[in-house]
Amino acid sequence: MTALDDRPDPILSRPHLLGTEGLSPVEITALLDLADKYVELNRQIHKKQSVLGGRTQINLFFEASTRTQSSFELAGKRLGADVMNMSVKGSSMSKGETLLDTAMTLNAMHPDLLVVRHSAAGAAELLAQKVGCAVINAGDGAHEHPTQALLDALTIRRRKGRLDGLTVAICGDVMHSRVARSNILLLHTMGAYVRVIAPSSLLPPAADRLGVEVHTGMESGLEGCDVVMMLRLQRERMEGGFIPSVREYYRYFGLDRDRLKLANPDALVMHPGPMNRGVEIDSAVADGVQSVIREQVEMGVAVRMAVLDALARNLPGGGNA
Amino acid sequence: MTALDDRPDPILSRPHLLGTEGLSPVEITALLDLADKYVELNRQIHKKQSVLGGRTQINLFFEASTRTQSSFELAGKRLGADVMNMSVKGSSMSKGETLLDTAMTLNAMHPDLLVVRHSAAGAAELLAQKVGCAVINAGDGAHEHPTQALLDALTIRRRKGRLDGLTVAICGDVMHSRVARSNILLLHTMGAYVRVIAPSSLLPPAADRLGVEVHTGMESGLEGCDVVMMLRLQRERMEGGFIPSVREYYRYFGLDRDRLKLANPDALVMHPGPMNRGVEIDSAVADGVQSVIREQVEMGVAVRMAVLDALARNLPGGGNA
Amino acid sequence: MTALDDRPDPILSRPHLLGTEGLSPVEITALLDLADKYVELNRQIHKKQSVLGGRTQINLFFEASTRTQSSFELAGKRLGADVMNMSVKGSSMSKGETLLDTAMTLNAMHPDLLVVRHSAAGAAELLAQKVGCAVINAGDGAHEHPTQALLDALTIRRRKGRLDGLTVAICGDVMHSRVARSNILLLHTMGAYVRVIAPSSLLPPAADRLGVEVHTGMESGLEGCDVVMMLRLQRERMEGGFIPSVREYYRYFGLDRDRLKLANPDALVMHPGPMNRGVEIDSAVADGVQSVIREQVEMGVAVRMAVLDALARNLPGGGNA
Repeated sequence: MTALDDRPDPILSRPHLLGTEGLSPVEITALLDLADKYVELNRQIHKKQSVLGGRTQINLFFEASTRTQSSFELAGKRLGADVMNMSVKGSSMSKGETLLDTAMTLNAMHPDLLVVRHSAAGAAELLAQKVGCAVINAGDGAHEHPTQALLDALTIRRRKGRLDGLTVAICGDVMHSRVARSNILLLHTMGAYVRVIAPSSLLPPAADRLGVEVHTGMESGLEGCDVVMMLRLQRERMEGGFIPSVREYYRYFGLDRDRLKLANPDALVMHPGPMNRGVEIDSAVADGVQSVIREQVEMGVAVRMAVLDALARNLPGGGNA
Repeated sequence: MTALDDRPDPILSRPHLLGTEGLSPVEITALLDLADKYVELNRQIHKKQSVLGGRTQINLFFEASTRTQSSFELAGKRLGADVMNMSVKGSSMSKGETLLDTAMTLNAMHPDLLVVRHSAAGAAELLAQKVGCAVINAGDGAHEHPTQALLDALTIRRRKGRLDGLTVAICGDVMHSRVARSNILLLHTMGAYVRVIAPSSLLPPAADRLGVEVHTGMESGLEGCDVVMMLRLQRERMEGGFIPSVREYYRYFGLDRDRLKLANPDALVMHPGPMNRGVEIDSAVADGVQSVIREQVEMGVAVRMAVLDALARNLPGGGNA
Repeated sequence: MTALDDRPDPILSRPHLLGTEGLSPVEITALLDLADKYVELNRQIHKKQSVLGGRTQINLFFEASTRTQSSFELAGKRLGADVMNMSVKGSSMSKGETLLDTAMTLNAMHPDLLVVRHSAAGAAELLAQKVGCAVINAGDGAHEHPTQALLDALTIRRRKGRLDGLTVAICGDVMHSRVARSNILLLHTMGAYVRVIAPSSLLPPAADRLGVEVHTGMESGLEGCDVVMMLRLQRERMEGGFIPSVREYYRYFGLDRDRLKLANPDALVMHPGPMNRGVEIDSAVADGVQSVIREQVEMGVAVRMAVLDALARNLPGGGNA
């Protein structure tokens, strides 16, 4: 095991990664550059580093997410950390009122890195205020999911060579999507143009304040796009109000081959997974030549390694780990 | 990774830790001294040791306990063991009649250390008679939970400088509590005076044989105490008989600021967690200056490291690991 | 940590282990020889190797199996791999239609070794066609469970010194058993004679095409056997048709002391576990002197280490790991 750098430079000006809001272009670029190195590492035979050797990483998931938790678990293990998963869904630790007790209990075990997913917006920030370790938000309600936005950005940058000046359409259930929110913030910071495409019932109440172009139809929304980012239809998050039928949804907002032709010919097709094939996306598109959906998963591990590495550098003694 | 000692001395005169019953003052003191060293280690940047390198630790939990299992998992990983969690609650392995089959199956995989939690008193001892590795009881029914008593003792000793001569009040559901039982045995061995405070319906049938002062009211029980150890009200363990309402229980046996004033001014407040805030303890007390509840969690990891280390020294080849 | 061999020779002529079908006698013998070395390693104080250092192993279990998953987990950890368990039963990833999406998601994380259990025959092979890593079938429906057959063969070979020329009776629910199928194929390849004993309702439709002697009664089936391999009665797998009562089953097909006397006096008694004591096997036999049931579990870890090691040698760079 060898460290990538003998004396790693600081990358982030903050102790936690709670969202993409407030990240500077320099910080984002440095994270993506570091992630690029980890992409190469993960393609090697020997994938193990020692940059987190002796460190403890806890994955605290109040919402189940096999995919995201696995990505963080592999990221930490490949960097040499001791990784502990805590799936507290359904356990006595999952009750809302004891979130802080849970956090303080974990904090007393001296983790260095705490990855947290919770159904309530602001949960990660609340924990970050109370604990002595670095907190990474792995999704908090409809608020933020910063590592998803970073892996999306890495995927785009590797394919298009840049983020600046691209037009990205985010399509679907924007209202309930932390993925959309984190992406909008990051893409704006990096100079991309962002559109959202959704039925008006799935647009956030203050969509116009997000600084995005709002489209309620795929035809106008997709025209001239460089990237089409589909969202998962999360019917389980829709309470009261209008819940679209799967068939209706697909007819008006599903991405199939014909619709995709409205975008630029070299437009990338993205999806954060897991996909509802035949609901928000057609299989021919999901598995087609413009799809980078599997690359996103690969970039996910690399981006999480970069984030863990960057935050560990900011811990006491981090520069000499 | 470096070992704390080149040639570790034996600490325990037994191959298993099944309870605090029978532990000598010398053994307890040596365990707490070793745990003190691990407290310091856990506060370092690099928390990893190699004393259990090449060893296998299995955490076999027939009852779910996120908190205790996590503490043992981190303890083993920080000592360099390969740690495997087996949560058999609800699986085919959890049926009572196959406890021994489960144990013998695990034994055939050659673990060195087996941490076991089970709802039946005596389960850990039964396993210990059958397997070839060191067994640590992580709670067996209402019988014993020795590492909890050891971490409580470490917490008290670090704050008070001693255990000998202190007056400790254990308050609440003493009847269903293995924590109470293990603490009473250990504290007596170390020369502390122990009182139990509980409604008569929650006192064990033979409370007078435990050699403790029995109080059925908080007022008399708390007077002059150096340590107030609250227990979790475990309504799920109460079958038949009297089950107190939460409101009634808090009125007569909850620890709030006014009640705490009855104890010595520098009395410590303890709780094994997870707390029922507003049931057995008020938040102002749980989070107050006299509370050492979070320290208990920290001491828990260190004490478990000391126990794992001490038992591994008694395994074949343990002195040279 | 030291490797068992500086330049490991290739053992398997294939990139995956999907079944025992097609394995040559030379391949099987080489796997068992390597497993013999790992049996010795697992009995040492220091059980850790580095042959999978820097490698990633994912255990993807669509069906719960505490026992088999644990065996693979320990095997991988003792060889130095980073091991990640994914129990997708009941999660969104467990829906049949997304098996390939799940596989491609995992593949994008660059595992080296993928251990998969699934309720559908052919699932492991389907995955193997799509991913870039080595796939080990840990049980696919009623099709194959090759590491079980290999550990059974290792257990027999260590006790009897050979497989060639032995008579092995496989008794019980042959129809629903991947264990039976994998064993029949492997034992035939190694020159053993195989009988199956089952009520006609639990014989596979094409029993005669398996090349085995078919018996519908224990008396004739056990006579002259060197090995009696009992199967678990899996009532949960029986749909429609005849489901035997436990009492009737035991009366006609349970193995007790008297029945065992029909076999050769030094016949081995085997069971893949977990046992239904009093259903397919009597406790006096399960725990008797002829039983090697616990040895099978020990051999299981060693055989899985051998398989992981052998497949890793065939990966790019495997010979120099």
